Amino acid sequence: MHVLRVDMTTQKITCEPLPDGWELVGGRALVAKVLCSEVPPQCEPLGAYNRLVLAVGPLARSGVPCAERLSAGAKSPLTQGIKESNAGGVLGYQMAAAGMRAIIIEGRAVHGGPYVLHCSPSENRLVPVPGLSGRGVYAATRILKAEFGDNAAVAVIGPAGEFLMAGAGIFITDTDGVPGRACGRGGLGAVMGAKGLKAVVVGPHRAPRPRTADPAALRAAIAEFLGMIRDTPQTAHAYPTYGTAGSLGPINALGGLPTRNFTAGSFEQAAAVSGEVLRDLIASRGGQGKSGHRCMPGCVVKCSNVFPDADGKPVVAPLEYETIAMLGPNLGIADLDTIAQLNHLANDVGVDTIEAGVALGMLMGAGRLAFGDGRGALALMKEIGEGTVLGRVLGNGAAITGRVLGITRIPAVKGQGFPAHEPRGIKGMISTYALSPMGADHTAAVTFRADMDHHRGAGHTAFNRTLQVRVAGFDSLGMCLFVTPAIGKKPALMADLINAVHGTGVGPEYLMELGKETLKHERAFNLAAGCGPDRLPEFMAEEAIPPFNLVADAPGPELESFWEPDFWGPLPVLPRWSKP
Amino acid sequence: MHVLRVDMTTQKITCEPLPDGWELVGGRALVAKVLCSEVPPQCEPLGAYNRLVLAVGPLARSGVPCAERLSAGAKSPLTQGIKESNAGGVLGYQMAAAGMRAIIIEGRAVHGGPYVLHCSPSENRLVPVPGLSGRGVYAATRILKAEFGDNAAVAVIGPAGEFLMAGAGIFITDTDGVPGRACGRGGLGAVMGAKGLKAVVVGPHRAPRPRTADPAALRAAIAEFLGMIRDTPQTAHAYPTYGTAGSLGPINALGGLPTRNFTAGSFEQAAAVSGEVLRDLIASRGGQGKSGHRCMPGCVVKCSNVFPDADGKPVVAPLEYETIAMLGPNLGIADLDTIAQLNHLANDVGVDTIEAGVALGMLMGAGRLAFGDGRGALALMKEIGEGTVLGRVLGNGAAITGRVLGITRIPAVKGQGFPAHEPRGIKGMISTYALSPMGADHTAAVTFRADMDHHRGAGHTAFNRTLQVRVAGFDSLGMCLFVTPAIGKKPALMADLINAVHGTGVGPEYLMELGKETLKHERAFNLAAGCGPDRLPEFMAEEAIPPFNLVADAPGPELESFWEPDFWGPLPVLPRWSKP
Repeated sequence: MHVLRVDMTTQKITCEPLPDGWELVGGRALVAKVLCSEVPPQCEPLGAYNRLVLAVGPLARSGVPCAERLSAGAKSPLTQGIKESNAGGVLGYQMAAAGMRAIIIEGRAVHGGPYVLHCSPSENRLVPVPGLSGRGVYAATRILKAEFGDNAAVAVIGPAGEFLMAGAGIFITDTDGVPGRACGRGGLGAVMGAKGLKAVVVGPHRAPRPRTADPAALRAAIAEFLGMIRDTPQTAHAYPTYGTAGSLGPINALGGLPTRNFTAGSFEQAAAVSGEVLRDLIASRGGQGKSGHRCMPGCVVKCSNVFPDADGKPVVAPLEYETIAMLGPNLGIADLDTIAQLNHLANDVGVDTIEAGVALGMLMGAGRLAFGDGRGALALMKEIGEGTVLGRVLGNGAAITGRVLGITRIPAVKGQGFPAHEPRGIKGMISTYALSPMGADHTAAVTFRADMDHHRGAGHTAFNRTLQVRVAGFDSLGMCLFVTPAIGKKPALMADLINAVHGTGVGPEYLMELGKETLKHERAFNLAAGCGPDRLPEFMAEEAIPPFNLVADAPGPELESFWEPDFWGPLPVLPRWSKP
Repeated sequence: MHVLRVDMTTQKITCEPLPDGWELVGGRALVAKVLCSEVPPQCEPLGAYNRLVLAVGPLARSGVPCAERLSAGAKSPLTQGIKESNAGGVLGYQMAAAGMRAIIIEGRAVHGGPYVLHCSPSENRLVPVPGLSGRGVYAATRILKAEFGDNAAVAVIGPAGEFLMAGAGIFITDTDGVPGRACGRGGLGAVMGAKGLKAVVVGPHRAPRPRTADPAALRAAIAEFLGMIRDTPQTAHAYPTYGTAGSLGPINALGGLPTRNFTAGSFEQAAAVSGEVLRDLIASRGGQGKSGHRCMPGCVVKCSNVFPDADGKPVVAPLEYETIAMLGPNLGIADLDTIAQLNHLANDVGVDTIEAGVALGMLMGAGRLAFGDGRGALALMKEIGEGTVLGRVLGNGAAITGRVLGITRIPAVKGQGFPAHEPRGIKGMISTYALSPMGADHTAAVTFRADMDHHRGAGHTAFNRTLQVRVAGFDSLGMCLFVTPAIGKKPALMADLINAVHGTGVGPEYLMELGKETLKHERAFNLAAGCGPDRLPEFMAEEAIPPFNLVADAPGPELESFWEPDFWGPLPVLPRWSKP
């Protein structure tokens, strides 16, 4: 295992041995480690001092299911704080196959480019591919495959990343080679673009899987893990059948579905865009459409899908809950075909569908486009890719859209737009959004399936903190979030899996310890960066939304207790950066 | 003396007695006091929790020269930190005549408006004047005078403030009733606009001047003060003759004149826009043009002017160094008439000429407009007032312009664009810009006339700190900055003046103590707000500029020593804000 370090300024690539203490950590934890030791917290996110980290987990390619997530991270141009965003797809697996735990991209290309980092079994090199400049994600992927082989894993940015938009993501190819898996949040595509890097292409590496320390123990632990996944209704049935869109019905019922620019928590046409309708539509159209699709090798959950048009030709893969909600109900759009087209276009342009959805919703809320105007929304999404001034505003996300257009009602925390778990209907999410170092990020702790009174503001913060710690642990192991419910029954199994693979003796609390350590690093970075504040936008405490007439009203002192030193202990001390 | 408190939400106006401890402080100190005690540092700058403070000094209308500056302050939508911006004009005098040390505007108008706060001798009231909506600063002033009388003092915002642009200022009428004096920096016009307030109209109050505690001592102290002003070349000759534009030549010679989007420190056509040329042009055109104009009652410096067109008709008053530089050399424009038209238009639209100049320069640097294209610049300034999307981007200032257009080279600190003292040519300004709680604000400590090696990066921070403290003291007494050089010979005279007016016994260090206290409050607010960082943009340390091939290279540890607790003592403790 090693770390690949790429200096875009000098074009030098070095292979470094895995540092001490990195053996059993990956993903989000490595992002935190690298940022806290190598990146001045007050540096400019799109400058030469920021570093882009791509990292996989210590169980990638070990045979453990769902362990090949890829984390991307850097100081975020959207939140100005630390950012980790992870995705499925095949890059994590290919990096592991290449023996890479992480790729660290530093500096900034001075001229030429855009560049492709190509990691083949024979060499790692930076290749200028001028023809990629300005290309959409899908076209760029075709060009990359033609150049570097069909079976390589690709991470690529679209025009949004090249335009340095704070809503730009990094797009990863899935098991079909389609670049539909996104490290979408926080503008990491812009960080990559600022470095002069258009794509990372890895593999295909076909090295034999490394020897496992204790194969018998691993087989047993995996069997137990698979049993738990099978015994959890969510992973056994809901995800493979409806995908993430299965959440739309329950969330709508709770009043947690952002509707028409966060002015309501349920959508009268929710039934038209539900997971059930989505599954039926995919099934009835046939062709290349598919439910129960796996996005990465080793996936046993299969929440992904391929959404086809009426002729059975793929429009986009996958079509997921967050995208459906933010580009559907949040825009007053109730048509899955329109939403799928918006999703395809957003991917091609290279922007986060959530951030773009929030920004478009704000534009509609300001009366600049009618709610429900799918054609208008498509035209604006196109403008993002073209880099018109309005397109650039929208592509920079909710906070910039608000500032430019004079909209003070901005659905964002720490500059990042809200995902589709409206915290006034699902009040456990208040703590998630206000307190996650990532800003408004639902994945930091999803609460709508938890056994709690979702319409009560008080009393959820301590539980939420535990959940954020567990999720941070999962993200730090490269595990898919969707097996959290299964592993929740026996978190110590993660330690068994790690010990069996690596021959180590970590204790049953390893998952939680790792998560806690990671959050502490993230917190320390954000404090040093001045990234804040830890609160929801003011309008959410004032504007009650239908159907339940609720505001976001978690008690301030309770929220403040989240970071109490008694729980966390001392935060890591970051290096002293006199410059820049 | 009292404080007028205006709640825009409830439309309630209350007259409060001057709080204990406010007797001898004003301006910037009162902004800091109100913000630190009444405004949650993490509130939204354009939300209901922010408060706009208008404050005068304790010597206003006492007969002390140059003591009627008006400070405006609030949490800034531009820097996200504390902001005080002061101006001349007649509002400070009229507020003092009305017995008001400060006006505090809180809340946010829920409907109707825009509103005018009218403070006449008979009543204080909020008046909705729908016809003012969208009006330029000059037209709005005409309407206000027609409505409320020719001799009232006016503070008004333009479309930029109504559009909530972070570059919007508040414009104050001068002794001729022309709204050309600006609290320009930091977006205070947007704060006013967000509250639903278009204008504040005060007076004319003609109450007799309050009794002075010791008239004989005051006469003596004023005589000494006037003598010092007369004995200082700057105030005796340069300011009344050339205005602030007299600085252009010396600053250009130092390599400190921002030229073509901060790519050079001197301008080959500087001679065409110098203070000397300006004076001669005003003199030769005659008519209503004027040099040696006083902007506020009690001014003995008379740095202001009225710039006429070829027919002697006023184009703009005043035309000052910062505006000439930022809308001239920084845009590659060498024609005073064009610059004056840009200035007039910026005032009418209601944006800060510095912030707009930086933003326009960036646009030119990005190749979207040619350097030197005055007609194009005028068209874009017009767009700001029209609220086109590009206009809104530019009106939001340098940082937003950079983010939207994908420009990473942003000449700004803490989100505020650089004024016309390029710190690579005048390196004493590095500390000013990096460390002032205001962001890149030259007025926090102007160093180009100081006796130092302006091209050496190291060794200026301690001096700069003393200067910042003194300036903060001046700003907190409502004194014009331009008498700093005179009073610098005997700072204790400020205590004599105060004691003579108020019958108090403050010590000779009062000016410095007040300045220090104010900076400590500002620092505490910014730390709580997360406003930072304390450094220059990265490009200024990397890009050497002609003619002296210099970078901004003050040593990091020296800059960090600025805020050392040994000097400042403990910072004030702000109230605990659980919400918002």
